[in-house]
Amino acid sequence: LWQDQAAPLDSAVLEFTVGEDPVLDLELLPFDCVASAAHAQMLCEIGVLGADELVALRQALVHIERRARAREIAITPEQEDCHTALEALLIEAAGESGRRIHTGRSRNDQVIMALRLLVRERLVGLGQRALAVVGILAELGRAHHRVVMPGFTHTRLAMPSTAGQLFACAGQGLCRSLETWLPALALANRSALGSASGFGVPLGLDRERVAELLALDGVDENTLWVQNSRGQLEAAVLFGLHQTALSVGRLATDLIWYSAEAYGFFGLPEALTTGSSIMPQKRNPDLLELMRAVPAAMLGRYVSVCGTLHGLVSGYHRDLQRTKSPLLGGLREIEAVLNLLAHTLSQISVDAERCSAAVTPELCATDLVYAKVKAGVPFREAYHQVKKAPLVALSSAAILAGRTHLGAPGTDPYPGLMAEVARLDAAWAPYAKAVERCQDLLASA
Amino acid sequence: LWQDQAAPLDSAVLEFTVGEDPVLDLELLPFDCVASAAHAQMLCEIGVLGADELVALRQALVHIERRARAREIAITPEQEDCHTALEALLIEAAGESGRRIHTGRSRNDQVIMALRLLVRERLVGLGQRALAVVGILAELGRAHHRVVMPGFTHTRLAMPSTAGQLFACAGQGLCRSLETWLPALALANRSALGSASGFGVPLGLDRERVAELLALDGVDENTLWVQNSRGQLEAAVLFGLHQTALSVGRLATDLIWYSAEAYGFFGLPEALTTGSSIMPQKRNPDLLELMRAVPAAMLGRYVSVCGTLHGLVSGYHRDLQRTKSPLLGGLREIEAVLNLLAHTLSQISVDAERCSAAVTPELCATDLVYAKVKAGVPFREAYHQVKKAPLVALSSAAILAGRTHLGAPGTDPYPGLMAEVARLDAAWAPYAKAVERCQDLLASA
Amino acid sequence: LWQDQAAPLDSAVLEFTVGEDPVLDLELLPFDCVASAAHAQMLCEIGVLGADELVALRQALVHIERRARAREIAITPEQEDCHTALEALLIEAAGESGRRIHTGRSRNDQVIMALRLLVRERLVGLGQRALAVVGILAELGRAHHRVVMPGFTHTRLAMPSTAGQLFACAGQGLCRSLETWLPALALANRSALGSASGFGVPLGLDRERVAELLALDGVDENTLWVQNSRGQLEAAVLFGLHQTALSVGRLATDLIWYSAEAYGFFGLPEALTTGSSIMPQKRNPDLLELMRAVPAAMLGRYVSVCGTLHGLVSGYHRDLQRTKSPLLGGLREIEAVLNLLAHTLSQISVDAERCSAAVTPELCATDLVYAKVKAGVPFREAYHQVKKAPLVALSSAAILAGRTHLGAPGTDPYPGLMAEVARLDAAWAPYAKAVERCQDLLASA
Amino acid sequence: LWQDQAAPLDSAVLEFTVGEDPVLDLELLPFDCVASAAHAQMLCEIGVLGADELVALRQALVHIERRARAREIAITPEQEDCHTALEALLIEAAGESGRRIHTGRSRNDQVIMALRLLVRERLVGLGQRALAVVGILAELGRAHHRVVMPGFTHTRLAMPSTAGQLFACAGQGLCRSLETWLPALALANRSALGSASGFGVPLGLDRERVAELLALDGVDENTLWVQNSRGQLEAAVLFGLHQTALSVGRLATDLIWYSAEAYGFFGLPEALTTGSSIMPQKRNPDLLELMRAVPAAMLGRYVSVCGTLHGLVSGYHRDLQRTKSPLLGGLREIEAVLNLLAHTLSQISVDAERCSAAVTPELCATDLVYAKVKAGVPFREAYHQVKKAPLVALSSAAILAGRTHLGAPGTDPYPGLMAEVARLDAAWAPYAKAVERCQDLLASA
Repeated sequence: LWQDQAAPLDSAVLEFTVGEDPVLDLELLPFDCVASAAHAQMLCEIGVLGADELVALRQALVHIERRARAREIAITPEQEDCHTALEALLIEAAGESGRRIHTGRSRNDQVIMALRLLVRERLVGLGQRALAVVGILAELGRAHHRVVMPGFTHTRLAMPSTAGQLFACAGQGLCRSLETWLPALALANRSALGSASGFGVPLGLDRERVAELLALDGVDENTLWVQNSRGQLEAAVLFGLHQTALSVGRLATDLIWYSAEAYGFFGLPEALTTGSSIMPQKRNPDLLELMRAVPAAMLGRYVSVCGTLHGLVSGYHRDLQRTKSPLLGGLREIEAVLNLLAHTLSQISVDAERCSAAVTPELCATDLVYAKVKAGVPFREAYHQVKKAPLVALSSAAILAGRTHLGAPGTDPYPGLMAEVARLDAAWAPYAKAVERCQDLLASA
Repeated sequence: LWQDQAAPLDSAVLEFTVGEDPVLDLELLPFDCVASAAHAQMLCEIGVLGADELVALRQALVHIERRARAREIAITPEQEDCHTALEALLIEAAGESGRRIHTGRSRNDQVIMALRLLVRERLVGLGQRALAVVGILAELGRAHHRVVMPGFTHTRLAMPSTAGQLFACAGQGLCRSLETWLPALALANRSALGSASGFGVPLGLDRERVAELLALDGVDENTLWVQNSRGQLEAAVLFGLHQTALSVGRLATDLIWYSAEAYGFFGLPEALTTGSSIMPQKRNPDLLELMRAVPAAMLGRYVSVCGTLHGLVSGYHRDLQRTKSPLLGGLREIEAVLNLLAHTLSQISVDAERCSAAVTPELCATDLVYAKVKAGVPFREAYHQVKKAPLVALSSAAILAGRTHLGAPGTDPYPGLMAEVARLDAAWAPYAKAVERCQDLLASA
Repeated sequence: LWQDQAAPLDSAVLEFTVGEDPVLDLELLPFDCVASAAHAQMLCEIGVLGADELVALRQALVHIERRARAREIAITPEQEDCHTALEALLIEAAGESGRRIHTGRSRNDQVIMALRLLVRERLVGLGQRALAVVGILAELGRAHHRVVMPGFTHTRLAMPSTAGQLFACAGQGLCRSLETWLPALALANRSALGSASGFGVPLGLDRERVAELLALDGVDENTLWVQNSRGQLEAAVLFGLHQTALSVGRLATDLIWYSAEAYGFFGLPEALTTGSSIMPQKRNPDLLELMRAVPAAMLGRYVSVCGTLHGLVSGYHRDLQRTKSPLLGGLREIEAVLNLLAHTLSQISVDAERCSAAVTPELCATDLVYAKVKAGVPFREAYHQVKKAPLVALSSAAILAGRTHLGAPGTDPYPGLMAEVARLDAAWAPYAKAVERCQDLLASA
Repeated sequence: LWQDQAAPLDSAVLEFTVGEDPVLDLELLPFDCVASAAHAQMLCEIGVLGADELVALRQALVHIERRARAREIAITPEQEDCHTALEALLIEAAGESGRRIHTGRSRNDQVIMALRLLVRERLVGLGQRALAVVGILAELGRAHHRVVMPGFTHTRLAMPSTAGQLFACAGQGLCRSLETWLPALALANRSALGSASGFGVPLGLDRERVAELLALDGVDENTLWVQNSRGQLEAAVLFGLHQTALSVGRLATDLIWYSAEAYGFFGLPEALTTGSSIMPQKRNPDLLELMRAVPAAMLGRYVSVCGTLHGLVSGYHRDLQRTKSPLLGGLREIEAVLNLLAHTLSQISVDAERCSAAVTPELCATDLVYAKVKAGVPFREAYHQVKKAPLVALSSAAILAGRTHLGAPGTDPYPGLMAEVARLDAAWAPYAKAVERCQDLLASA
């Protein structure tokens, strides 16, 4: 298309430089179609494309986008990426109009825009999925909020807690981790188009109009910065996913240990555990273990993306191509994790008897201190008195009765968690709406 | 104080476990004082402390806080941390009332609360400093926005740009990086108090009142989650600082290379460069090089903090102590970087002659393509025509005249950047106000 | 095979837990075949298998190995991995004898053994390839060792150097990086077999015999440690590959910058550069840029593997499955890099004229200092005298004449580098021989 | 000394660029003294220094080295580092001879040489300390090799193991991790001197003679590579320390969990545990938890060092100064960890009763399979038969009797481990001898 036919790229070099792009770019192509539709409309409005040319291009884009979503399009190594493939398809479909589509843009801003639209759509969907998991955790938190079990610090018996507290804790952690996604959503929600290869073009583009058509929150003004943002959006996404993975991983770690034979507080059905090729009696929590391992994979992705940026001068470098695979891999992985987590939580059981049987006297030492505090003894004195006295067990009822303050074990976590869900839903809403409006751009064609 | 005098900790173990805490905690102590004042007031309101006890404690806290800010207090290894040191000082100052202050709390929630207040105050101050740097960059962007210089992609001559575009790019990058701080500010802005060691206490604490007194945006409800948040706040801070360091590092890399003899676009005064012990003629940009290295240090800190969390069950573990040093080190480093960057930018020079002399004909090839586009030739055809034609140089005036769209090189970046500053200032405002209100808590005592 | 037909694993769980294994394990299968042949022979020698059973199994293994190397075997998700697939194929081929092959082993030690054999074979091949690249660099170093060009520190003109010095530097770096592979080779070169799932088996296995048959340097004795080594071998490999990637990346960075228009010391043929879809005149060094990016990807892999290990108790956990993909990905990538590097180096050109034209007077300041030193002036005095005196240029001949000590620019690096190659070849030889002897095990069947 | 008095470095810039060097360099100074003694002797032999000048310089170096080891020397910020401080001290002590010491070198090769000598000496000492810990673990392994306890995979009951197996496993892991230090020792054991700032000097230095005097294994020939090695030696050290930290961390994790109330296999004396400020009954294994956290800190250091190297062209850059602190910090930390580990292991107790009581019937399922295997049933059939049959417990005696192969639980691990220690001792010996010979250089003055 634009490549030099007289001096073709060495085939070994082509294979190395193109790398996984022909596969990865299939995920990007639908977003490149939408961005191209907005770009074409603006080109028409500033007089570069005729009205009929726009119609032809949009029809072609609708068709290509549908085929791309259905994975019916292949990108050849010679095309290098989805952007050249798209231009070729548009020329095939719309002739000379296709040869005008690259006016006012470069593959550099195209890929950034497609990545941003992809990130926005994916994070919106994943966020809703994550909130659904929080809902399940809120229900588990409520269902088991009166099931007393030991609370541990330093993996040692500490003070009484409840099974519900553990589920609600994971729910709250998941909510907090979702807040860390917001910078990625904000960074993704600005237009990159018109920055071309980092220095704009000598043409009167209407960059704000394109942003409006794509339901974006304005334009990333400085054309050079747009190029520098490559890698930083990916880092922001992977940071958010890493934090979510840490929250999920922590719950998985809790469930692995507290469902071990020595604790037995939780149970996994056989269908969610695997066996052993040597030990006939074995049932293993592989699925939870793989969830525990996800944070390390996410951290590796974050390091790989950010490490790529060290030492680069401003502007595009091919090094940045390497940020695509960690980004897409991270998004795919978190989706699988959230799906499996919902699946697992709906089948997990709580063994209330083993939970309460494990609440031994040492767990109640602090309750004894507080009994003295309520009688007017200064805390530090009460502490030393109890330290010397024999330990005494308390009943579950007594334990639960004493804990009344906001968020304490024994209180119902459901309302608080659902308020968090509502708050996050509201924070997500503008992005969700933007995704819809953006999809309409092609649908309405 | 609370340690077992009969069975003291082995001294080698004490040294190892306490580590740097006696030094690091000097930074935390002022925030522990404020948090303690709010906690004491709530204890008084729920009847645990008498009104006169509260007065005595607050006076002591005011005094300790002032001495702590002036670094006049030492923490002994036996005290382990600032929390035990503070309790000891309060007992010394206020007798029995001091022995009541630990009611309804644990060192676990104390340290989290102190860290959150420290993070909030530091990020507010650092954000304002960073916005001041953006202001300097906006001015440089305006001052040099008509100084044509080459734009590079792949470190190769690409299209014409301007010196101002490079400064403005850094300014926009800095603004975007500040958006990545917002989750850290949001996470820091909730109360941890009342969660004790992760399982609350059997006492009717008013956790919301404490949050209100500390000008926080509510309570982190689930007591166990509060413990799990340790490390995740630190990660959020370090992520934000890492992104800022990446933006600064990229500008530093630009300035290092484009002030090298072969380019000479920028100049550093001698007072900002260092010499060599072997080569008498040398002037080196060490200061910019050290800024380029900061992202790697930040990434190391992020990895170290997050790596610590892998594989832990919920609740506090001493491993988490290790997250303190990377957090405080990262905050100190970004402060130095922002100070030095402002200092450097105010002394950097632009060599407009070398800039424009470097704008060779190959940079203008795309302008030739667009001349044809304006004459109606489809872009892809024009591209191929220019590819075969000889290259032609354009004057700076012609180059600048052609670039008119939003954010293009040659346009004035000042208004856009200052609008970003205003937007971020507004996002920062509630936190800045909260910091003030929180400081008033002790001031009013 | 061994899975519970009555309680099959949930299909969503199966997909998630099995992950990429059916694909990745195709690379492992040939090594599992060799290890199985050694294991079978030992079982025969201790009386678990009859002589004819051994013959049948070995014939089947030869056949399966050949098909596996030709990628003619598929592993089903239900089989989970190559180990179960192999057992199934052996049962299919050899009936009851196949049902005996799993005696005295577990998939846990099988996968570790297969990974170690794979690592040994791959590192042997890659090391030889890397040494061939060193040979090319030694030749370039010799060819251009009298081509004077500037030497830079801090990206500033420093002292005279030569083009050959730069190639030889990369050669020496590559050699040093290969030394960092030795721990991985040593760790890989011990037998894991007989450790079963970490606790051995109640049967009189002859573990040393298996090690001998596989041409290994002894047995990893402690059965539990064998399980703990999972992840640590992978880390050792990735560390070595990362160090090699850093050496290659540094050379790539040199070539990118010093072939830029402003320097022009090196040239890349058009067939090794790519174009731009917007700028018709562009030729970009994408291939070198992608080499520069490899260290970041390797670092990400190292972090991901090691991060997985944090917080695990001894013994196998499914988390460790996640170390397979970074290991195999890293090995594949370094292979591509070494191939492309050899390809590139053979086509790179040196522009001796631009090199020597860039040797400006400031580069010669230290030569003036040394002229005074030779006349008896103390170095520090001479330094200060030159600092105040005007700069004087030296001819290339004069520059080269002064530099005579070992390794100085201008001396021929070929003999030294080839001595390093010989030394590394010798260090590699026992492993190369072991790989051959191990391959014979099946060939001789 | 060499700095430009007329154009002094801006003081804020000085503070930022010098950073921690005046403190960190106190550790380097003694090694700079030894290297300087070797350098001076060579300068004398090639006629740059007179014999009496050499005597004066050596006497001064002996004196400075002694004071440096005793921490009696301070480095001022204006001196920047220990190298300038040393030159100033030598001029003070030896007048004009001092002004000759910098002949044929630069601070660039000085710091690299000092770091290499420091690394060699430290790793030799730390390795011996680590081997002593392996000796303790070997003794614990022998002492408890007949104490049956459960073996776990996936944190689930798997097969019988012994308490001794766990200690011996840690010992073997520690040995293997020491093998990963060898590249760092090899990289450190070559001379950097004479490479000056990366391009040698125009003077007939005898680089091989210096290497001989410092008891090094030859010269790093290519002068530019010597500069590129900065950061890669640090990476090699930190990789080795990270692997050791992973081994220690895994043992710590085992001890934390298996000394928890639910398992109780191991016990820690009160003097090695800490208390709680809120829970009077608490004893926490903080010391083990901090050991578990060390791998994350080491990983952060590795990332920070290697991340610094990404994107740099060959030769020195000030960025590399940032590799000093992670290196020295890592060495200090591993020293503390090894000391504390020895201390802890000597006081840990094994509860043989709880160990054996935990060996429940499910652990013996595989023994039942093997009983059938011994009777001739193919393994896979025996496996399925046992799966359907009821579980049966075995006595400790029966369990131990069945496990006879090399390295199985129940066998004495002492001889094997001590053979590993001897092997590593031999690998360490040349480095230990070199350290001694090098120390003699100043002692003999």
